[in-house]
Amino acid sequence: MPPVSLDTLDTPCLVLERGRLQRNLARVAATVAARGVRLRPHLKTAKSIDVARLAAPDPATPVAVSTLLEAEYFFAHGYRDVFYAVGLGPGKLPRVAKLLRAGARLLTCLDDAGTAAKLAAFAAAEGVAFRVLIEVDCGEHRAGVAPDGPELPEIARALGRNFAGVTTHGGQSYDGRSAAEMNAFGEVEAGAARLAAGRLAAAGFPCEVVSVGSSPTAMTTNALAGITEVRAGVYMFGDLFQAGIGTCALDDIAVSVLTEVISRPAGRDAFLIDAGAFALSKDLATASLPPAQQAGYGWLCDLDGRLLRGLKVARVWQEHGRVVSDRPLAPDAFPVGTRLRVLPNHICPTAAAHATYNVVEHSRAVLATWPRINGW
Amino acid sequence: MPPVSLDTLDTPCLVLERGRLQRNLARVAATVAARGVRLRPHLKTAKSIDVARLAAPDPATPVAVSTLLEAEYFFAHGYRDVFYAVGLGPGKLPRVAKLLRAGARLLTCLDDAGTAAKLAAFAAAEGVAFRVLIEVDCGEHRAGVAPDGPELPEIARALGRNFAGVTTHGGQSYDGRSAAEMNAFGEVEAGAARLAAGRLAAAGFPCEVVSVGSSPTAMTTNALAGITEVRAGVYMFGDLFQAGIGTCALDDIAVSVLTEVISRPAGRDAFLIDAGAFALSKDLATASLPPAQQAGYGWLCDLDGRLLRGLKVARVWQEHGRVVSDRPLAPDAFPVGTRLRVLPNHICPTAAAHATYNVVEHSRAVLATWPRINGW
Repeated sequence: MPPVSLDTLDTPCLVLERGRLQRNLARVAATVAARGVRLRPHLKTAKSIDVARLAAPDPATPVAVSTLLEAEYFFAHGYRDVFYAVGLGPGKLPRVAKLLRAGARLLTCLDDAGTAAKLAAFAAAEGVAFRVLIEVDCGEHRAGVAPDGPELPEIARALGRNFAGVTTHGGQSYDGRSAAEMNAFGEVEAGAARLAAGRLAAAGFPCEVVSVGSSPTAMTTNALAGITEVRAGVYMFGDLFQAGIGTCALDDIAVSVLTEVISRPAGRDAFLIDAGAFALSKDLATASLPPAQQAGYGWLCDLDGRLLRGLKVARVWQEHGRVVSDRPLAPDAFPVGTRLRVLPNHICPTAAAHATYNVVEHSRAVLATWPRINGW
Repeated sequence: MPPVSLDTLDTPCLVLERGRLQRNLARVAATVAARGVRLRPHLKTAKSIDVARLAAPDPATPVAVSTLLEAEYFFAHGYRDVFYAVGLGPGKLPRVAKLLRAGARLLTCLDDAGTAAKLAAFAAAEGVAFRVLIEVDCGEHRAGVAPDGPELPEIARALGRNFAGVTTHGGQSYDGRSAAEMNAFGEVEAGAARLAAGRLAAAGFPCEVVSVGSSPTAMTTNALAGITEVRAGVYMFGDLFQAGIGTCALDDIAVSVLTEVISRPAGRDAFLIDAGAFALSKDLATASLPPAQQAGYGWLCDLDGRLLRGLKVARVWQEHGRVVSDRPLAPDAFPVGTRLRVLPNHICPTAAAHATYNVVEHSRAVLATWPRINGW
């Protein structure tokens, strides 16, 4: 049997360049370490124990997740300090309690006094200690209470002994387009967390955890006094949007979608590939960038990862993607059967459609297949 | 242990109303039967053996699929006549051959003479007979050769004994907004297939299969002389886009996403649910409909499926959805923990994020959990 390679893999599928992943991990780890705080790698993008082992080789490292399924999976693989960083609804209390009882140091977050009271009553009735962060809004206006508002001490009181600190996410940093803007967003993010933690401490609720982070603000160099940890996830792989806002370079993008040309209509500067809405996702993140960085549903590379400038996936159907060229295509270019790789707009939803990563390094040989954990 | 119900299921997850599914199946089966052709249910939306058993109770029924993984799965469950209705690239020949050797009557399609020649050589070398349809473009301009163009007999000749007929898909019918327009698209679709089949027969290549279809054109009542089968898939479940173009009613929509309110910021006519871009998909199909039918990322229902007019998911992040109201919300409306259901814009990508359907009928009790097969 011939060795598995990008020439023979079933398409569509994910290709992960291990060297790029390791470089991305090292760069952000060094940046965050230099700021004197710990990095809590967010595993919502990777969702893979094999990636986690590179991002956080010591299982005592704190990690973040976006679903309780991820929390259960990484805990089962030895990671005890796991932050489920999405607001906790009361329907999830039993599942969280089960993890806590099993020995996980699971952190959760919420922004609602009613839920905090329910949680405290549930924890007391079940004899389980929760570890809950109050979510603070630092300007994204997604979730969270105002760092200077009246809800903050009220929620801490309702949580009682289950209170563990504060968390915020400067998601508005995705609107940043320069290092100076990212720094400013990072200051706002850390400032909100610091203000909230200070008010809580003054009210008798010292914070064990003061957690901030997003991939753009994690890579800034602001001072982080009073902050205990920085979360980031998408930096592991990068994508065209992250490259567009300057948080990675194009050749840092570590995951792409392997695809095959399946239709090459005569007389058109376009062709179809077998990677469509499902294999790439319908995310159009780069549509908000300047025209030269707008990638449709993705830019194309050849099988060895070299960017094919001027080609992009302009339209997708469930299992078809239409690649268009900004210049005339030679009639014999990209015949049916040609293998290509698509750089994703936004790697989180793209990766979520796939069950595995095919790992390569410096060649087309597949060195390993790493599973992912999707769903809830 | 209490019976599983929508009140206690882990969120987010899919809810399937079996009665609606059965009604949708019966309606389209009767419509197509009345036209004197057979229906080939397309299982790309459902991807579930349990749904297949309702849509095609006799495993001798021909079915269509969108991935080879689906083909393998449904064949393993007894369905032999399976049409993989996405253009076949040469990289998939070995996997198709394996299914054919195992006894599947697998139909495939392509639109390229070079691929046809490769396929014929491969089939001869492997001693396997393929069954290949030539894909014809009836105006969508996605894939396919012109029904009146020179490629048609050329591809049939290249296929040789592997030739089985023609297929077309009037995907432009999704632009239709009235029964009259759908009928017109259906006429064009059938006309293109008929023209292609007639030309091939005249060239010495009689078509065993002349396959047409899309959910909108499948529900028209045009005569279908010369057509052997109609394919449709999304009709099984329906969605807000299909309701918007009139191919189903709102209360025909059979699958929704169960979710929980996780954040209810004070003073805003909005709240957050735990169904975001992953649980709902980023599909914005209804954005092309008139304003009153634009649903953002989905409309909301209460736990019993009653539409909550004026609420929609206006923005999504990976695991958060922001629901906005078009009128002021009472401060105590939709507190954290409230359970709701989201009607999807486009059920195909929404369902693809989930591993199972939770089946209900006339109550909140979950009668069964049906698995889905995602990926490739």
